[in-house]
Amino acid sequence: MPLTLYTGPTGNGRKPLIFLKILNIPHDVHLFTWPAGDQLKQEWYLKLNPHGLIPTLVDGDLVLAESNAILQYLAETYDTEGKFSYKLATNPIEYWQQQKWLFYQATQFAGTLKSFNVYIGIKAEDKAFWGEILKEFTTTYQVLDDHLKENKWFVGDKFTFVDLAFAIGHHRRKEVSKRIGDEVSFKDYETKYPHVEEWYSRVLAVPGIEAGLELK
Amino acid sequence: MPLTLYTGPTGNGRKPLIFLKILNIPHDVHLFTWPAGDQLKQEWYLKLNPHGLIPTLVDGDLVLAESNAILQYLAETYDTEGKFSYKLATNPIEYWQQQKWLFYQATQFAGTLKSFNVYIGIKAEDKAFWGEILKEFTTTYQVLDDHLKENKWFVGDKFTFVDLAFAIGHHRRKEVSKRIGDEVSFKDYETKYPHVEEWYSRVLAVPGIEAGLELK
Repeated sequence: MPLTLYTGPTGNGRKPLIFLKILNIPHDVHLFTWPAGDQLKQEWYLKLNPHGLIPTLVDGDLVLAESNAILQYLAETYDTEGKFSYKLATNPIEYWQQQKWLFYQATQFAGTLKSFNVYIGIKAEDKAFWGEILKEFTTTYQVLDDHLKENKWFVGDKFTFVDLAFAIGHHRRKEVSKRIGDEVSFKDYETKYPHVEEWYSRVLAVPGIEAGLELK
Repeated sequence: MPLTLYTGPTGNGRKPLIFLKILNIPHDVHLFTWPAGDQLKQEWYLKLNPHGLIPTLVDGDLVLAESNAILQYLAETYDTEGKFSYKLATNPIEYWQQQKWLFYQATQFAGTLKSFNVYIGIKAEDKAFWGEILKEFTTTYQVLDDHLKENKWFVGDKFTFVDLAFAIGHHRRKEVSKRIGDEVSFKDYETKYPHVEEWYSRVLAVPGIEAGLELK
């Protein structure tokens, strides 16, 4: 039985779907329409993912949630030659940098972006909180820009699934920018963080990425 | 040269320090006093951790940030017999559940708790946002309680570093509760989520945990 991915057209939802396609792994997809509403609260789905989050991967006996954990699993299990990942046995330093960046992506990047989305969703007007989140996000972009000024890719000397995770986050951030318009401004990010933009162009040139990002 | 941990008395800061002690690994500690203020923005520290976050581990050539990545590294490198962790080679299902729970801990648990802290720090008064965060956090506690009703530990049948990560988060949540008092209420959490409390008692009985949680 091929593996099955339960997902939707969000940043985290696209991560494993794009990676499956790039790795050319046979798979079934259960794509929730968006916004998902109560679809994720159905009893059968909560058995796979008790919080009602996407994505979830089912591969034989394994039921795995958390998009970055799924990326790691796919890399470890199906990218055995290390085309898009580094292995602990042969490249321990790069392997642990992969882990570090994945957590940083999940917390400082995606986590902060999620706060924005919640904030926008409830049309909150607390400028102090808004400013605090934006300050944190700006630090994150500075860290990324400094790193990508010195490095072509996030880890080692090739495109890895860490670049995929951040590129999807970056794409998502651009989507949020469009939606919120001038209310809070990321408008100067493209000029303030040029090395992020240059790296993003390199990522978009990797076959399969650009089409995956537009998944609806 | 022994490994060196740069950390402070926060939830994430305590994670690797307690694990180092439990694993009985020789180590040096650079403990920042708290609140850290500009200490984390010193040039020498930003070279190790460009965002100015704690903790950071230096072990030979490896410089590793992100508390949960450090836990994984310590488990993989120094807990080779699997006393407090499961290994991919022998227990793949448990290994990947470890990964999943670590990301869940970093995002749904610690990430949400951080929003509370930012919120409290700036004395924000937006009740809609506050309510939205609390709703999310309540779902997370329900997920934990349901899981711990059926399972003695988070993964497999023994205490692992995943239990450590969540116990520190839970302890931190109790600290936040005390500080904010009635302003936002976690007061009924102890009765609403009894299996979390029972599990927490089991964790506190593991040698080295309780003393580590009180680290200042």
